Amino acid sequence: MKNFPIIKSRRLRSTPYTDRIESHGVSSYTVYNHMLLPATFKSLESDYKHLKKFVQVWDVAAERQVEITGKDSSELVQLMTCRDLSKSKIGRCYYAPLIDNEGFLVNDPIINKLAEDKWWLSIADSDVIFFAKGLAAGNKFKVEIKEPNVNILAVQGPLSDDLMSKLFGEEIRELKFFNFKYFDFRGKKYFVARSGWSKQGGYEIYVEDNTAGQDLYDYLFEYGAEYNVKAGCPNLIERIESALLSYGNDFDNRDNPFEANFDRFINLESNVNFLGKEKLIEIKQNGINRKLMGVKIDHNKIDMYCEKTLYDDNNNIIGYVRSAAYSPTFKKVIGIAMINKPYWQKKDQFRIEIDEKIYVGTVCDLPFI
Amino acid sequence: MKNFPIIKSRRLRSTPYTDRIESHGVSSYTVYNHMLLPATFKSLESDYKHLKKFVQVWDVAAERQVEITGKDSSELVQLMTCRDLSKSKIGRCYYAPLIDNEGFLVNDPIINKLAEDKWWLSIADSDVIFFAKGLAAGNKFKVEIKEPNVNILAVQGPLSDDLMSKLFGEEIRELKFFNFKYFDFRGKKYFVARSGWSKQGGYEIYVEDNTAGQDLYDYLFEYGAEYNVKAGCPNLIERIESALLSYGNDFDNRDNPFEANFDRFINLESNVNFLGKEKLIEIKQNGINRKLMGVKIDHNKIDMYCEKTLYDDNNNIIGYVRSAAYSPTFKKVIGIAMINKPYWQKKDQFRIEIDEKIYVGTVCDLPFI
Repeated sequence: MKNFPIIKSRRLRSTPYTDRIESHGVSSYTVYNHMLLPATFKSLESDYKHLKKFVQVWDVAAERQVEITGKDSSELVQLMTCRDLSKSKIGRCYYAPLIDNEGFLVNDPIINKLAEDKWWLSIADSDVIFFAKGLAAGNKFKVEIKEPNVNILAVQGPLSDDLMSKLFGEEIRELKFFNFKYFDFRGKKYFVARSGWSKQGGYEIYVEDNTAGQDLYDYLFEYGAEYNVKAGCPNLIERIESALLSYGNDFDNRDNPFEANFDRFINLESNVNFLGKEKLIEIKQNGINRKLMGVKIDHNKIDMYCEKTLYDDNNNIIGYVRSAAYSPTFKKVIGIAMINKPYWQKKDQFRIEIDEKIYVGTVCDLPFI
Repeated sequence: MKNFPIIKSRRLRSTPYTDRIESHGVSSYTVYNHMLLPATFKSLESDYKHLKKFVQVWDVAAERQVEITGKDSSELVQLMTCRDLSKSKIGRCYYAPLIDNEGFLVNDPIINKLAEDKWWLSIADSDVIFFAKGLAAGNKFKVEIKEPNVNILAVQGPLSDDLMSKLFGEEIRELKFFNFKYFDFRGKKYFVARSGWSKQGGYEIYVEDNTAGQDLYDYLFEYGAEYNVKAGCPNLIERIESALLSYGNDFDNRDNPFEANFDRFINLESNVNFLGKEKLIEIKQNGINRKLMGVKIDHNKIDMYCEKTLYDDNNNIIGYVRSAAYSPTFKKVIGIAMINKPYWQKKDQFRIEIDEKIYVGTVCDLPFI
């Protein structure tokens, strides 16, 4: 696949860390929430190996926040998600599919509860702010909705605890998964969550002050030398291996949350009010006709720029692979695919065309084992 | 400015024409509505010169449509824009700023009225579909909202009438500016509007069938050889010279429509109901504190990846340039800038840093003359 340069502009926003990641050797970008998101540094595979062994600092400012505050903020946030938030606690992060009136997915943010009347939706790549503003206006909710100047730095990898405790103190090791708290470093307070878009362990630091973030970025490298810290970014291979889904890649506004395996975040029995609830009850009763599954393909290379069709031996379409990469661990191409009924149960072999040749693969469960 | 490759994925959607524009020599991309939008072919300046003299075919599939149909569709569409659409006619295109409850801009689509209860909002780079879905759900409107499979081909340039009439017949020359109609070519019907994101004249063809669009793409080149047709794209130099604004570049959800010079599309005296109306009345009464203006800078080069600050002789900030390019016509860098009060009236000289040197420029009216 030929490479094409991206033309920067104000519309594809740079982050407070862009100068730094460019001097640390970023080698390609994607665009996410109208912002530059690094896609590779040394190479996809080299970044992957480093991430699984050491610690990386990621510029994930493109994970933008939608801040919802005010008297009706809880009601609005609950209206947007099928996950029951009625027992949610301050200081916790909730992974929560957002659903529209038709039962289709809008986004899959992490919802951070900062106060009973203050929420940050840390969003995937769609303009949740306009969904929230539309709902708030239509329902005459008393809320304020804005995109605050928050630019996340993630510290990811097995040595992230060592690096973070060196800066923020040993207490940070006690922070539980999907909890957040403010921690001090050199006289400044940082909002730190134990979370991140890898399964290698780590933290996300929601930086509210650009200079404090840039300072922190530099200190992470200074303090991290002994842990072989490097600049990194969400890694396509690692995130597929870990079955971390990507809105726009693996599912979008044409898919419902059952198809995307969000069952455990769909609380239809609860008495909370959310958009699309009746539609989701109907879908659950009727059952779904396709479902996100894993695929493994006997090949060592795949370029994905749109979904690729999967066929059975009789040339029936069994589904479409939506994200894929060669995995050095599985020694195969692995991918996330929307598989039609009944093929997801049969787990038969399929055929796929890559670079004008036919390869075979199998459907498997997620996460990969 | 160093070039970085863009990593393609399903999330940065290709268009039905991507293979074609790549074989026609596209040399860089931007991302627009989660889709690849070509940014240059031969070079920005070479593309510009060709566009102003001949005719180009553009893949502007990234101008996505939000289709709103149903009983309450007119009410919803009107609610989203401060432009009075009560006298709007079928077959017409309306450039219309979309406004949120706070009086801030959401997008600046062309609204195409296909029927009394069928509208296509041809959008700039923000997810208007979720704004519409939120408003519809909140207001319990009886509407259907979706993104149809429409992929626009634009034919732009002074020879576009010649090329288009060769395909669609002489009748197409009679199509008025911002009107649309279905025209036949080789047994297929195409939705053609006289519009486009240049001031060189031309058409936008809203293609509803991928194969019909790909065929048309090829025929436009076959029929256009005598007019020196080339593949092109919205051109940064030409669009700034023509003062065609870009959502996300020149204005965004932090700006109100008065600041962005949309005065003639703000119908506060009308009795139609739209979001942010009271807020806009208040802003009009109080007056604005900044305003989009032109700037001309005595230099031959500028790289824009974020806004750049403009200073007066006493180091006061007078504003920020948001889009800019070297114009071979004006033999200066020209740009679109948000200028603070009172500097937009004084039109004094300012200073700006480009590549670590200081250059001088002046504020001027838009469009440039």
